[in-house]
Formats: sequence, structure tokens, C-alpha cells
Amino acid sequence: MERLQEAIRQRGSVRGQDIVKVDSFLNHQLDVELLDAIAAELAARFRGGPVTKILTCEASGIAVAAAVARIFRVPAVFAKKNPSRNLDPDCFSADVYSYTRQQIYQIRVSRSYLGPADHVLIVDDFLANGLALLGMKSLVDQAGAHLVGCGIVIEKGFQPGGRKVRSTGTRVESLVVIDRIENGQVHFA
Amino acid sequence: MERLQEAIRQRGSVRGQDIVKVDSFLNHQLDVELLDAIAAELAARFRGGPVTKILTCEASGIAVAAAVARIFRVPAVFAKKNPSRNLDPDCFSADVYSYTRQQIYQIRVSRSYLGPADHVLIVDDFLANGLALLGMKSLVDQAGAHLVGCGIVIEKGFQPGGRKVRSTGTRVESLVVIDRIENGQVHFA
Repeated sequence: MERLQEAIRQRGSVRGQDIVKVDSFLNHQLDVELLDAIAAELAARFRGGPVTKILTCEASGIAVAAAVARIFRVPAVFAKKNPSRNLDPDCFSADVYSYTRQQIYQIRVSRSYLGPADHVLIVDDFLANGLALLGMKSLVDQAGAHLVGCGIVIEKGFQPGGRKVRSTGTRVESLVVIDRIENGQVHFA
Repeated sequence: MERLQEAIRQRGSVRGQDIVKVDSFLNHQLDVELLDAIAAELAARFRGGPVTKILTCEASGIAVAAAVARIFRVPAVFAKKNPSRNLDPDCFSADVYSYTRQQIYQIRVSRSYLGPADHVLIVDDFLANGLALLGMKSLVDQAGAHLVGCGIVIEKGFQPGGRKVRSTGTRVESLVVIDRIENGQVHFA
């Protein structure tokens, strides 16, 4: 997706060899028009079969998941990350290790919002180590739902997540894949 | 907003005297069509003057803030709640006590995304004790930006937040105000 590559190059910033910050349009400030273009492209890739629900993880996946859900006219569900006394205790849950935060957290979805009749499209902003995605796949599996695939905005091709998730037989579509970061420059696959 | 009151009555659930759960359409699972109707109504209330930015707090404010931002064709910014090594250290920040989680957390917005030229509309899903809203107002004040007002989906009129925030001279528009919860029934103002 040319427009997204341009946004990453011109409005993103690089830290060291492995961090690309897209806070200016995707992760902290949201460029809603670009977000809608991203959602349209993700939706187009999964238009072949039924999709009944979009699943993502709070917080930065929510806006793009909602935009994809708007196109499919289905609900978006975001897995909760933090303990909350208001969350339904009757949940599907999975442990996810976050390299960014260097801690294990639990992601949870209420049993009310995922079930065997669902065809679930997982949507997330980044795919790096793949652990959040595998956690969400586990939620879908626990629900007995059908996993349609994963739609990713930015995949870091130099990290193992893409390979790991695809090796489970899951279809993963990434709008851009970053091949490497060199001298502060992002190179796309 | 009649349609929202109906959704709360029919698809929400009540816990005790003070908790209304709207996980089925606003806080965990998102009904994007209803969300867009909510956003249209919020936007209509603030159409009089310039709005250059929508501000909310992760996580459950993000979807409605993005939907409002789409209408105004401006960026949405969501304040971060959790420490993250990837966040710009150069931030506006405020401490917020959460009654739900019974702890103080810090909300932060990068200085890159709020400034003196901004006319900021704060958007949030709930107004109860008002502390998150006052924290966001502090971020706007620190940035030297103009606070247009606060657009709230559900205000708990029996809690002190609305009074507290309005007493600062801030315009607060709530789509529905819950007057009281009695015998598991929600009564609107």
C-alpha cells in the first residue's frame, strides 16, 4: 500500500534498529482519513468469505478494527488488557508476553461476544513477535469460532511473528512489510 | 438521544446501584453503526465554532473519538494510560484517580500533538466522577490550547463529575444523563 509506505517514511520515525514509531497517524494521534483507506484495503483482502466479527486488542488496534467493522457492517470486539472489576468474569483469556513492556499481561474477551457461529477477522496495527496475535487466535479457538485470518497494518518482516503465525496455517495479510531498518531508513519488502 | 437510551435499556445491564455496563455496544463490543449515530449527535452539538482536534483517553474512548474526528475531518489524539518505553518522553501529563480500578494512573499526550493553535473537543464514553475529564482538561491547559468543550456519551447524573467539570466553566454536552438506578432499572434525566 503505497500511501501507507509514504506515511511511514514521511511521518513516522525510527529508533535504533527495530522500532518504527507511527504515533503521528496510527498509535497516538489518528489520521482518520488514512485509517479509512487502510481499513478499505484490509477489508478488500478478506472480501471472499463471510466475516461476522472483527477482533482486536486494546488500545491501538481499536480505531482500525472499528473502521474495518464499519465496512463489513459487523461488530468489532476489543480484547481487554487490564484487570477491571467491571469486566464480565466469564471470559476467554490468554497470556501474552509484551516485549515493549517486558511483562506478561492477560487478554480477555467476554464469552458473550465470541461463539461457534462466528467467522472472526483479527485486525491489529503491528505484527512483530506475533504473541498478541497468537493470544487472539487462542481466544478465537477457545470460542470454537472460525478464524478467517489476520489483517495487519505494519508487519516487521525482520521479526519472527509473521512466520510464527503463518506456520499455524493462519492467513496473514499485511499492508506493508518492513524488511529492515538501516541508518534510520525504513526499507520495505 | 432516544436511540441511545433504548440501547442502554435493552442491551445494557445494571450492577448494583451505580454501575451500568454497556459492553455489548460501546465498551468491549462496538456497534459501529450506533457509534456513528452517537458521533453525529456529538458533532452536531459542537458545530458552532472551530474544532481542530479531538482528545480522548485510551481505551474505550478511542472508537467514539475517531468517529467524531471523521465528521470534523480533524485528527483524534488519545491520551496514553500505561507507561511505555516507546512513548515520546516529552509529554503533557496528569494524574488521574480511577474509582473503577482504585488506583492513580498517569495520562499523557506527546507535546507534538497538542499546541496553542488547537481548538480541542474532548470526547469520552462516560462521565461519572469527572477525574479523567479534569485530567484531559489539564493536558489541554498545559498545551495552551483552547478547550471547546466535552462531548460525553453517558453521564451519570447522580455522581459529581458533571457538576465538577461544569464548575470550571467548561461546556459539557452529554447525550444521555442517567438520573438514578433503581431495582435494576435505569432512569434517565
